[in-house]
Amino acid sequence: MQAFQDYYPDRFSHCFGCGRNHPQGLHLKTYWDGDGTLTRFTPPALYSGGVPEHVYGGLIAALFDCHGTASAAAFAYRAEGREMGDGQPALRYVTASLKVDFLRPTPQHVELALRARLVHHEGRKVRLEMDLSAGDNVCAKGEMLAIRFVERTSETADPPAP
Amino acid sequence: MQAFQDYYPDRFSHCFGCGRNHPQGLHLKTYWDGDGTLTRFTPPALYSGGVPEHVYGGLIAALFDCHGTASAAAFAYRAEGREMGDGQPALRYVTASLKVDFLRPTPQHVELALRARLVHHEGRKVRLEMDLSAGDNVCAKGEMLAIRFVERTSETADPPAP
Repeated sequence: MQAFQDYYPDRFSHCFGCGRNHPQGLHLKTYWDGDGTLTRFTPPALYSGGVPEHVYGGLIAALFDCHGTASAAAFAYRAEGREMGDGQPALRYVTASLKVDFLRPTPQHVELALRARLVHHEGRKVRLEMDLSAGDNVCAKGEMLAIRFVERTSETADPPAP
Repeated sequence: MQAFQDYYPDRFSHCFGCGRNHPQGLHLKTYWDGDGTLTRFTPPALYSGGVPEHVYGGLIAALFDCHGTASAAAFAYRAEGREMGDGQPALRYVTASLKVDFLRPTPQHVELALRARLVHHEGRKVRLEMDLSAGDNVCAKGEMLAIRFVERTSETADPPAP
């Protein structure tokens, strides 16, 4: 199954967090999960928080950022009745605003699950609610306002599926 | 001049973003700048956004996170009339909530300046406003609610100045 990020145009695929063309990045991969979206990720030990065995807060915000913009695009495709990779100009979103509430320490060495739900979609704007869980514990919540990126070059078409 | 992070107890100094004991981290350093605080940082090319030459949004949130918690501690020391490294139990803060507004793309290959201003300090809570600038351009703004960490072990005293 291909992830949303596998359909990003090459020009948008250099992100440290989720770009498939980034040689050393985190390579986050986001998929549909019912009406919502899901990214699974096990943080490398590198991203320690101040106290060992807990994930660095900045990484948590970063995971929400990439998960959210991928999810915003997916919700927009769905709203337009489109499929990614349909050969039409790609829909890409950038973060206008991201709020993260840290509810409890996020443990290292376990797989984290990020989920997103669509709150509102109007014009170029998509609002999302997200959470990050370790097992049954919700460790952080996120809110994002994402804005559709308007391309200024001719390189807008989806690439063929990889 | 010693940075706020140089006074963190060893136990809190493993953060990827700002821990002096992290072998590969970003080692952010925050200082007083008038009534506010300042962190300067030039992002490595590694932290590319989706489009090259722009910084990854997740890194921007991460910079605000470390800059904010360091600044919250500094504002708390000042409010209590204390100096860091005074041998009393250290004041450490964790992020309860962080909101980032992305105003414009943040360029790579230039030194960024993060600043924080105290908005409100009451009990264990510190509210901050922050911005991130590249030259004269404010690229992002941040709002943080930080909460004083209550230590559960005996390792609370500031270390001697390094």
